[in-house]
Amino acid sequence: MAIIVKILGSNSASFAHNRHHTCQILQVKDKYLMIDCGEGTQLQCKRYNVKLSKIDHILISHLHGDHYYGLIGLLSTMHLYGRQKDLTLAGPPGLKEIISLQLRYSETRLNFSVEFTEWVPENIQTVLETERFTVDTIPLDHRVPCSGYLIKEKPNRRRINRELLKETLPPSHLHALKSSEDVYDKDGKLLYRWEDVTKPPLKNVSYAYCSDTRFKPDIIEQIKGSDLVYHEATFADDMKERAYDTYHTTAKQAASIARDAEVSQLLIGHFSTRYKDLDVVLEEARAVFPHTSLAIEGNTFNA
Amino acid sequence: MAIIVKILGSNSASFAHNRHHTCQILQVKDKYLMIDCGEGTQLQCKRYNVKLSKIDHILISHLHGDHYYGLIGLLSTMHLYGRQKDLTLAGPPGLKEIISLQLRYSETRLNFSVEFTEWVPENIQTVLETERFTVDTIPLDHRVPCSGYLIKEKPNRRRINRELLKETLPPSHLHALKSSEDVYDKDGKLLYRWEDVTKPPLKNVSYAYCSDTRFKPDIIEQIKGSDLVYHEATFADDMKERAYDTYHTTAKQAASIARDAEVSQLLIGHFSTRYKDLDVVLEEARAVFPHTSLAIEGNTFNA
Repeated sequence: MAIIVKILGSNSASFAHNRHHTCQILQVKDKYLMIDCGEGTQLQCKRYNVKLSKIDHILISHLHGDHYYGLIGLLSTMHLYGRQKDLTLAGPPGLKEIISLQLRYSETRLNFSVEFTEWVPENIQTVLETERFTVDTIPLDHRVPCSGYLIKEKPNRRRINRELLKETLPPSHLHALKSSEDVYDKDGKLLYRWEDVTKPPLKNVSYAYCSDTRFKPDIIEQIKGSDLVYHEATFADDMKERAYDTYHTTAKQAASIARDAEVSQLLIGHFSTRYKDLDVVLEEARAVFPHTSLAIEGNTFNA
Repeated sequence: MAIIVKILGSNSASFAHNRHHTCQILQVKDKYLMIDCGEGTQLQCKRYNVKLSKIDHILISHLHGDHYYGLIGLLSTMHLYGRQKDLTLAGPPGLKEIISLQLRYSETRLNFSVEFTEWVPENIQTVLETERFTVDTIPLDHRVPCSGYLIKEKPNRRRINRELLKETLPPSHLHALKSSEDVYDKDGKLLYRWEDVTKPPLKNVSYAYCSDTRFKPDIIEQIKGSDLVYHEATFADDMKERAYDTYHTTAKQAASIARDAEVSQLLIGHFSTRYKDLDVVLEEARAVFPHTSLAIEGNTFNA
């Protein structure tokens, strides 16, 4: 299965034009990840039918409020709903101190375990590795320590061509065939050669999340060839100086990153409140990189 | 003018049934006060046309998230919108540490001054005094340090009976008459006796905000005779034990406080998510104290 990205927030800094603060929900294999968690994220989850109980991992890009002020409320609500499943949380230095302080004053001891990973700014660092995917930081250039995240599936296993099987095989046999191993019956007689009954694996895909940052072409090497890239595009290019001064990127610059990194699809978001109508940023980006979409609340994209 | 109370949130703990976390906006004379500030309060302000720039004072009752998680976002948005007007902020010990820590990590230096007052739990303490009203804490009984607030207008001045004035008087003369002083012309000749041209002052009113707390009849003495009282009523009375265990009050108990304190009107709120339909708590309270209303989002009440 591909990586599925659902957008819960698309506006920068303030709430406007029915746009909310940054949050994305990813389904990667059988796991659910949340990236960033602006204020009101739990309300957006309700609106877009995202079950908090499903979330396994949360990744925070930086400690500006529009990217994390909803986190403490989200954790509190998970606690209130009786969550017991472990949670991992990756983010910049300081995140654990902030969350812990608020839990201490509310005299709350969460009834689930939270494993914090605070990355080192400016390093590429693997903050999560499961059997089936990895998450690395993408060091960005913002006013405070900030990292994006590169989520990469590990190579997929081969797929069974069920039409070619004469009987129902036990899971251990299916697993062996998918892993390029032949299977035998209990008397040692060959049942199937893996090459005869399997198809090549699905491509392992990757998703790069890049927000917030000044135009930073040196991320291209790391995200090269990604299937799907989200890049902030706070301003249109006529505001290039303002983008630089406020450590943000323009739509044209974001598209040039996607083009030069030879990715398949680009999503842009984190829009300035000045753009009620987003055609200007979308058209500007598409002029440079045609496979661009707006990462708008409720929309879903596949890597 | 009376004290006007606008409700922005009425649900306890979680978001449900279109009910939000606790927040109330008060207009007292020419000042605007916010009491409590759950997550998403800035969105509720937008929805109910409350201008953030007008707010002069914020009062936080305790450090459970449904009463203050929206505060850091509110302050950040005020900053973003260029606020320069001073703000006062009263709350329990720890509030300043939490806010300061988050501002430090986001490298934000607010462009307006915030004067923090952290009250001493269990003491009645005046946290705000202006020319025209005072705000005292009401010590409550909750799982963490918690105080309600008693807002009392100072005695109003007499009112000019303009029909009895033969000419337009300068503001200094009007002020003197309202303050029960006679006024003279520049030659020392009596122009008006205050008793002849003024009416008695409007009654000075008071509003008591009591959330969250176990049933605590010893607050009755402090709120005695208040014009308007808000009291939490998280549960109906068949959940009395659960109310006690979770440091909350039932609707029947809240109404008995209003009755015994001989107040004019009662508002109940902070409803448990279990009550989609609030008739049960309203009827229960009204059976004990008929002048009870539901403090529901968007509703406005006058003390």
